Amino acid sequence: MTSGVTAVPGFVAGGIACGIKPSGDPDLALVATEDATAVVAAGVFTTNLAQAAPVQVSRRHLANGRASAVVLSSGNANAATGEPGRRDAARMCELAAQGRGLAADDVLVCSTGLIGIPMPMDALEVGVPKVCGELAADGGGRAARAIMTTDTKVKEAVARAGSATVGGMAKGAAMLSPAMATMLAVVTTDADVDHATLQRALARAVSESFDCLSVDGCRSTNDTVLVLANGRAGQVDEHAFTAALTEVCGSLAEQMARDAEGATKFVRVRVVGARSGAEARIAARAVANSQLVQCSLNGNDPYWGRVLSELGASGAYLEPEAVDISYNGVTVCRDGVACPHDEDALTRALAEPDIEIRCDLRQAHGDATVLTTDLSHAYIDENRRTS
Amino acid sequence: MTSGVTAVPGFVAGGIACGIKPSGDPDLALVATEDATAVVAAGVFTTNLAQAAPVQVSRRHLANGRASAVVLSSGNANAATGEPGRRDAARMCELAAQGRGLAADDVLVCSTGLIGIPMPMDALEVGVPKVCGELAADGGGRAARAIMTTDTKVKEAVARAGSATVGGMAKGAAMLSPAMATMLAVVTTDADVDHATLQRALARAVSESFDCLSVDGCRSTNDTVLVLANGRAGQVDEHAFTAALTEVCGSLAEQMARDAEGATKFVRVRVVGARSGAEARIAARAVANSQLVQCSLNGNDPYWGRVLSELGASGAYLEPEAVDISYNGVTVCRDGVACPHDEDALTRALAEPDIEIRCDLRQAHGDATVLTTDLSHAYIDENRRTS
Repeated sequence: MTSGVTAVPGFVAGGIACGIKPSGDPDLALVATEDATAVVAAGVFTTNLAQAAPVQVSRRHLANGRASAVVLSSGNANAATGEPGRRDAARMCELAAQGRGLAADDVLVCSTGLIGIPMPMDALEVGVPKVCGELAADGGGRAARAIMTTDTKVKEAVARAGSATVGGMAKGAAMLSPAMATMLAVVTTDADVDHATLQRALARAVSESFDCLSVDGCRSTNDTVLVLANGRAGQVDEHAFTAALTEVCGSLAEQMARDAEGATKFVRVRVVGARSGAEARIAARAVANSQLVQCSLNGNDPYWGRVLSELGASGAYLEPEAVDISYNGVTVCRDGVACPHDEDALTRALAEPDIEIRCDLRQAHGDATVLTTDLSHAYIDENRRTS
Repeated sequence: MTSGVTAVPGFVAGGIACGIKPSGDPDLALVATEDATAVVAAGVFTTNLAQAAPVQVSRRHLANGRASAVVLSSGNANAATGEPGRRDAARMCELAAQGRGLAADDVLVCSTGLIGIPMPMDALEVGVPKVCGELAADGGGRAARAIMTTDTKVKEAVARAGSATVGGMAKGAAMLSPAMATMLAVVTTDADVDHATLQRALARAVSESFDCLSVDGCRSTNDTVLVLANGRAGQVDEHAFTAALTEVCGSLAEQMARDAEGATKFVRVRVVGARSGAEARIAARAVANSQLVQCSLNGNDPYWGRVLSELGASGAYLEPEAVDISYNGVTVCRDGVACPHDEDALTRALAEPDIEIRCDLRQAHGDATVLTTDLSHAYIDENRRTS
């Protein structure tokens, strides 16, 4: 057993450089069942109306609830590429199917990278057969490496549910907030679950993990989370399985936030005391998405006035003079106004790389946490030119 | 007749430095009727639940639909200041009323600046009587200067409606997008209009101007637009009056966008061909608010893929393969995919300080324009520390 998707018995993976990225970095990955059988599979896809070609093709291939392999490329999103893009995505599946001895519709496909540029199919015609020949039971890390774009770190996670293992890899929504960069995740498990259960567990896990990044609600053209379950470990309790899947997705989401472009801070915005969980989430997201709050965090500046202002404009109900706000446990606003606090403790708290902004609306018991980062010069530098 | 609010006969204004701003810059303004009579007045206030004290007090004082003066301070927002803040805002009205021989509830009050800090009332106790003594028929420019915060330019506008004049001043929502900085505007006119007509015309004008900045929907704690009408020029056609009021507000809104913090580009995002005007506005706002689109504009990078992705996630209906996108008239995306274009013309277009991104959804005739800017290092530098 190794890391990520190959931590689960019965799955193999690989990652190579096939020439999509001009840098020569790894850019093509394959995750597959070891014995080339199709197993139970489920997926959550972007809600963006401008869906990339691989999303369209994977949705179609997943209609039967089964899959045997996922081919993933990085460096080109194959988005806004029209009918030729759909042909290219389907061809990637076909090539993987040929390499593995499968039907093409048992292969799912994901791509990430620049939008609006035709896929370099010459590279993939050679690359997909090549990666099929290099699959290994310890290839999870290489696959995870090959799906990175502006990520600086490989993102993998593993959890246990009874006798079963859940393993996953992801590449970051590297521009986290309120952005649109693609996030891809592939999860494997040897739990024996039926399609409906797997889809339900995945929806729940995504809602509690990736959807708590501040990207949520505003998905990119390519966002995809896939899970394949080969059943080898037998049946497990659904609750325990969902918890393990949520743990893996949660860990991957946190790794994304920690590796976000140009970020110097990892920030949890926690809203408690809202009228409902849904209102808590709306309020937390408003604070997390705020460019001004993010700038303050970049400057270690405890400007809670902006936090209060974002809460007030979020749509969640609050009484401004019943709001308390703290940074890493140091309360700076009580009853909606500035309150006495230890300045040295506050300065130390804000200098930490991990910040929790806690907002208590004191209305009821709605509670939510959204992950975000600060906004830095490096973020702008990363995103002002695509070439 | 002079500029801005004193371009209208019958209004006087002034602006001084009273010591709110540590810099010693002007920070206190008064706009008033020349003869100290209360005239027809209307206002549009922030929709933020965390309303600053001056907003609460001005709403109350405007309940009778009349006002004689507006006192405005900059450097401190008097927001998140609780009951003492409301007392301070009311006291500012009282001081202006005493200075002008009015009832306190004929005075409206606006403040802008940092949130959560008590008003320096010692400075205002001296300052308000002082500015009352310096009102002049050519004081509009001084008033406009005294309400600036991070604005670099005075913002004034004048338009005519038949025999009547409409004059206005504003300070910018200097952090435009998707931010929360306060915008204040005061407009004067000598048109003879009743309260209901004035309120209706103002609501219309704001919707067509300030609400087309990408701040819209997400108002700060202090946002306020006020209009005072002294009736001296007699009745004018309501349509012509609304048009003149909209012209003044539109000019002030454009001046705000052009003076936004750190901005190097003035950007119009125009969406045409949407199913409705409302959907066009949702789509235009999504593109305008996008941190990633703003970064691309900062780098003169025609990355239309991000524009398409934001359109697709906006909530407006579209068919991705029926979308056309152009930058200053150079079409880069047709039918949702990259299209041939003159590279030199595109490079020249993107180097312009004024950019129009035009998105044609080709569904129906819904049309909307939202103003925004690029995102720069200077924006972060301006906002990472409040002190």
